[in-house]
Order: sequence, then C-alpha cells, then structure tokens
Amino acid sequence: MTSALRVALLGCGTVGSEVVRVLQNQGDDLAARAGARLEVVGIAVRRLDVERPGIDPALLTTDAEALVRRDDVDLVVEVIGGIEPARSLILAAFESGSSVITANKALLAEDGPTLFAAAESAGVDLYFEAAVAGAIPIIRPLSESLIGDQITQVMGIVNGTTNFILDKMHNEGASYADVLAEAQELGYAEADPTADVEGFDAAAKAAILAGIAFHTRVAAHEVYREGITGITRSDIEAAAEMGTVVKLLAICELHTQTDDAGNVTETVSARVHPALIPATHPLATVGGPYNAVFTESTGAGSLMFYGAGAGGAPTASAVLGDLVTAARNRMRGATGPGESAYTQRQVMPIGEIDTCYFISIDAADQPGVLAAIASCFAHHGVSVQTMRQQVGVNRAETARIVVVTHSAKEAALSAVVEELRSLTEVQEVCSVMRVEGE
Amino acid sequence: MTSALRVALLGCGTVGSEVVRVLQNQGDDLAARAGARLEVVGIAVRRLDVERPGIDPALLTTDAEALVRRDDVDLVVEVIGGIEPARSLILAAFESGSSVITANKALLAEDGPTLFAAAESAGVDLYFEAAVAGAIPIIRPLSESLIGDQITQVMGIVNGTTNFILDKMHNEGASYADVLAEAQELGYAEADPTADVEGFDAAAKAAILAGIAFHTRVAAHEVYREGITGITRSDIEAAAEMGTVVKLLAICELHTQTDDAGNVTETVSARVHPALIPATHPLATVGGPYNAVFTESTGAGSLMFYGAGAGGAPTASAVLGDLVTAARNRMRGATGPGESAYTQRQVMPIGEIDTCYFISIDAADQPGVLAAIASCFAHHGVSVQTMRQQVGVNRAETARIVVVTHSAKEAALSAVVEELRSLTEVQEVCSVMRVEGE
Repeated sequence: MTSALRVALLGCGTVGSEVVRVLQNQGDDLAARAGARLEVVGIAVRRLDVERPGIDPALLTTDAEALVRRDDVDLVVEVIGGIEPARSLILAAFESGSSVITANKALLAEDGPTLFAAAESAGVDLYFEAAVAGAIPIIRPLSESLIGDQITQVMGIVNGTTNFILDKMHNEGASYADVLAEAQELGYAEADPTADVEGFDAAAKAAILAGIAFHTRVAAHEVYREGITGITRSDIEAAAEMGTVVKLLAICELHTQTDDAGNVTETVSARVHPALIPATHPLATVGGPYNAVFTESTGAGSLMFYGAGAGGAPTASAVLGDLVTAARNRMRGATGPGESAYTQRQVMPIGEIDTCYFISIDAADQPGVLAAIASCFAHHGVSVQTMRQQVGVNRAETARIVVVTHSAKEAALSAVVEELRSLTEVQEVCSVMRVEGE
Repeated sequence: MTSALRVALLGCGTVGSEVVRVLQNQGDDLAARAGARLEVVGIAVRRLDVERPGIDPALLTTDAEALVRRDDVDLVVEVIGGIEPARSLILAAFESGSSVITANKALLAEDGPTLFAAAESAGVDLYFEAAVAGAIPIIRPLSESLIGDQITQVMGIVNGTTNFILDKMHNEGASYADVLAEAQELGYAEADPTADVEGFDAAAKAAILAGIAFHTRVAAHEVYREGITGITRSDIEAAAEMGTVVKLLAICELHTQTDDAGNVTETVSARVHPALIPATHPLATVGGPYNAVFTESTGAGSLMFYGAGAGGAPTASAVLGDLVTAARNRMRGATGPGESAYTQRQVMPIGEIDTCYFISIDAADQPGVLAAIASCFAHHGVSVQTMRQQVGVNRAETARIVVVTHSAKEAALSAVVEELRSLTEVQEVCSVMRVEGE
C-alpha cells in the first residue's frame, strides 16, 4: 500500500498543465521515486471558463488562498509568477505546513529572504530550480554539489529570448526590430518584451545566482542592468570582424581585496549587459533559445551547464525534480538544505568593476583624428588594446573607429566617452560594450 | 559555540591531501555551510615514512580498520580506490554509524548494491559525486535534479586520459604510441595504462551512470567495452575527412519495445567504445583532459555538463561537496536520497543495439571491387549510407574504401566484416568504428 502526498498547483499555463500531465502519465514511476503517490488535489486558476485539455475541471478553483490553506495539502507548486498574490500564497502555504516548489524568479530576487525565513521556521522546503535557466540543473549544483568549493564567478546566458534575437542578428545580419518581431510571432518573445530585452528577467536570475554562489544576499535592484535594445547590426558586424560575438550575459563575481594592513575584504558584484565574447568561448556557441551557465571555482576550475532555458516541458522537468525531492524529504521527515546566506557581503557598484571595453566611434576622416581619440583614453588612464579604422562605413568622409581597451573601471570609461563626445572630430560614439571571457 | 563533526580520511594521495588542505584553509566557511566544524581526526595511509607536506604526522595511522571503527568518527572519506580493503572499510564505517564519501568508481560498479543496502540499513549517507567525471556535478543532477524526468540517454566523455590521447592524435597527427608516451610523461596516463586505454575506467563509470539514470542496477561486467589501443592515425584522418572526430564514449540508453499485444518492455544498455561524432556535436569540442556528459530526457531535452574530469583539486571539490552535504544532513538528523533502483531492467546485449558504423577497408584497386564490397553489406541486410574510395593511400594499387552504414545491429555488421575478410579483393579490414550523435 503506497501512501500519497497531496499537491496543490497554483497556475495552469504551459508549465502547470505539463506538470499535471506528467503526474498523471508517469504516476507509478514518480511514486516509486518519491516513496509516495503525488496526487493533485486542486489547481488554482484565474478564470474557469478557459479550455484546458487533459485537466479535470473538478480540480479547478479560483480561490487560491483556500486551496493552499487546505489541511490535506502537503506540497504546493507555484507557477503563476509575479510578486503578488504569489508571495502571500507561498507564505500561507508555509503556514499550513506545506513545502513549496516555485519557478518565480522575480519574487525570489525581490523578496527571497522573507520566503527562506518563513520556510525555515515552518520546517518545510522551498525549492526553485525552475527559476533560473529552465531545465538546466544549476541551483542544486551551486547550492549542493559546489558547497565545499569557493565559487569566484558565475557567468551565463540565462535569457533565451535575447539570445535568440542576438543569434539571429549575428547569423542573418537582420536588424533588432525585425528579429524581435519574428521572435514575437514564434512565441519566443512576449507582446511586451520589456522584461526580456531590457534585462530585468536576467537580472532577477543574476541576483538569485549571486546569492547562492557567494552565500550572501543580492536583491534584484542591486544588479547592474543594461538590455539589448541599443544593439545595432553594425555592432554585431564589428564584433564578428574581431572574432567575437555579442551575448547578453549575467555575470556574478566574488572580488577579494587586501588592504595595506593585510585585511581581506570580500565583495560581490552582479550585472547583466551585452558583451563581446570570443567566438571560441564555450558560451559563444550557445544558440537560439538555449541557456548556459559557466562557473569558475577554486577547486573545480571551469564548469559549464547547458540546456533548454525555457518552454513547458523543460521547465516542468525542473519543477518535477524539485517536487519529487520535496516529497522524498517529507516521507523521510526531513528537509533539504535551505538558504546558506551566512555572509553579508557588500555589493560592489558597477563603477568599481574592471572590464575591457569595445567602443565604436564615427569620426571625420581627416589627419589627427586617431591621435585626438587616443589622447582622450590616455587622459583618463584607460589603456588601449587595439584601435582599428575603417573608412566609408556609413558615409563617405566618415571613418568608423573601433577601440578595444585593456581592463578599466566604468567610471574612467564614462569620462572617456564624455570627452570623446565633446571632440569636434567625433560625429558620434555609436556604441560602448564590455568585452568578457578572454 | 559551533559543534564539530569528526572526519576520518582513508588515503592521502593527490585527492586526499587536497581535501585536508581545504578543510584546514577554508575551515570557517565550510563550518558555516555544514553547520559544524569538520575536523580531521585521522588519516589512514599505507606507509608512514613518506614526506607529506602540510599534513600533521600525528594524524597518520596504518590501521585503517581501527580508524573507521573509532566511536568518535562521524564521516569517512575513502580515496584509496580499488575493491579491497576499500569495501571492507566502508562497510565497517557504516557499521559504526558513519556516513561515507567515496570516489571509488571500481567498487561502486562492482558491488554498489551491497554498499547502498548497508548505508540504508545503518541510516547513514553514501555519496560518490567524485566517482564519475571528477569535478563535474553529474551524480546529483541525475539522481536529484532529473528525478522527475524520464532520462533516455546518457552519453559522455568520462575518461580524460583517452580523451587527451585522441585529441592529440587528431590535432597533431601523432601516433597512438607516441601520444601515450607523452601522456605518461605528463602524468595524464599511468605507467600501466590498461584501465584507461582499454576502457575499464569508463565502463565502471557507465555502469554507475546507467544505474542512476534508469533506476536499475548495472554491473561493470554488463557494460560492453572496447578501448582505443587499436585506433590508428589513418582512422583519425578518415574521420576528419568526413567532418567527424573520434572520441571514446560511454553511452547508456533506455530502450522501449512494444510487442504486438501492446506490452511495453524497457531494457537498458551501457557501452564504452571509440565512436565517430560530428565535429559540430557539443562533445566533439571537449578537448584534452576535460570530461563532458550529455543527457537526453523526455522533459528537459538535451542537457550538457562540462568540466575537469580528474586532478587533485577538481576531484577534491566533488568530495568536499559531498562531505559538507553529508555533514549538513547529519546536523539535521537526516540522510540524503539513497539508491533509487526500484526497477530491474534487463541489460540489452551489444549484438541487439542499433548503431551506424564506419568501416575502412584496403582493397585491390581493380574494377568490380566496390560492387563486391557493396554486395557483402546487402547480403546481411546492412544498408550503406556512403561509400568513398581513395587510391594510393597506403600503397600503389591499393584502394582505401570507407563505408558508413545506416543503423544496423552489431551481429549483422560482424557477419559483414567476416564476409569482407573472405573476399580475395579485400587486403584488410582496417577498422570498424561506430558512428554516434547524429
């Protein structure tokens, strides 16, 4: 006689309905792995009058609050997204003694500590593998497999929509606007694409990754963020000429500084921005809607995790992995590891971070221009790695000058750009992007 | 006041001494993560008269049995390898109520079920992330992250020595013997390289991966195994001409067969052999001593895990991740998930497995040879995908003929090869390799 655990589902979109489908079709297998049958006892939805093939209408309810507070519920799966009512419902679930599995990156990045504390005090689990990089196991490897290591960097492509767009721009020479429209048509981008193309989605994921990797807390608003809306065809072309590709990266780093007295300070940083990476870098070949996360740690060295970053079945795989794990814990009267934010590391402001830069400039095609531009960099102590000049790219009598710097602080680079803009020879500073992964 | 857990270490080679070093240097961090200080109370070694920099000689003992049976030991790390005395020591550790972390693939592949059962009945943990693919988190992703998914294939490069050798042969056109000698000089290959080059090491890992992925038990002797000692420069060249590279792969598959009555039978297979994979396949670019594991599952689709496959610090990272996890479990009075072999799936014999083949043949350069060779394939129902002929590769008057088949069973292919060898026109069947990853 197999015992059963009761599951409440909040949300029944692409991911939710796939979770229900797998629980029905693979019920015996999952029961053998969890040590108990997983029985869906209710599904909270916003509207009842929507066609939901394969879903028993008797399970549906619009009263999510009553569902999570039911005494007979053991496990709650939250796939509605957004801050409220998701937060209140998750907290109510903890109060009722249920473990929670969520895919809600926005909520975790905004108010994770509240959730972790509530789960801990209720003695239940909070799992969220699906919140970052879809099906790719990354939360568990960071928080469990690498728990004995010192992670120094997490760098990844964690937003499939922007990766699809940049990839198409690179491969087909298409414009941002055209590819965005195509992505919207294919369902890879939302009608309002802001969360993806402005980097908000990736920034939430970066906050979560940085917190776990560095055992501290990083909120979404502490993540520096730039989107891809300003990337032009000519940026992509210039990058390709240099043997690089443009990717929207989420980068989390641990910075160790030793002062004159030998005191060591560790700070962290988290940022999301487009960056040029060498075409030979493992992340460069991550195409289309795929995601990949690269980690550097003292012991393990470089590791990479690659797979589908979104979609119903891949995200459901991550949700179901957590659901079976939470069920198994419950059957053994145990909980998983919980939060490990035992340090309170300062978040380094973006102006303090050293990176190399790529700057493209349209300038008058006349003697002395290169010298004038080079002087701007020198004035602010920014060392130049390479300078290339192409004549007649946009207009006759205009030279396109591409500069790649050595490592410099953002503050210094901003001062360079301001001075460049004041030069009479400079028509336009067309783009400024960071260079990573060298 | 932090509590402490006591660690006994069995073996103090490259991995063991790195584990001790990290426990000493990162003690505060690891204590914060584990919830208790991890204190090494003894190290079992074979000989006391060896220089061990950084190791307190007072910790050393040659009596491993007495060490694991000490009442005050909570956690045992086994990094001596081999079957005995490792097995007896691990079983003794369980009897004394200690959790065990091991990197011992040979023992797990030979006698895993005994160990899992003993750990379960003692109510302690057995962790072994370091046993497969060094630092790469693969055991935990398979056994926890993907526990809600249906894994259908695990394919990987899990032996760094052979990958280093094949990579060098490919990149430098060097012979097997020369590269093996270089690998031995660099410490990438043992003085007796049999375990690596004959595929025994990879086969043990394949047995472990197949068992976890398919929730069944696969022993090392049930894994089909071919090594790389027969691979020649000309095989590598012929592969390269076809846009492929030769890799030693470990491949674990779930095979689902439905009979006429609609009954579904699921069997598994596990094999290790050299194979040609397209140069564009993610595994093709895994170079040198790196490892990578590729999984296919119903929900998540394709996932890849990449990183350092061996070495002191990377392997120690995996050991320490398990050690902190086991410590954290112990502080919470819990254990991890344990074995999940709830099915008893038959292991499919190699003769039953369908794969494409690459066959290179030296034959007389005369009319009718291609037709004679093609007939051999036809006789045994093996469909040919491509046939290429090059004249004068080895000798004048000799044609090198390279055939790639469509999917065929090994039994049929063996019959083809036998008949080819009986043809008067055929001078030699130079090599037969499988083609994968298409």
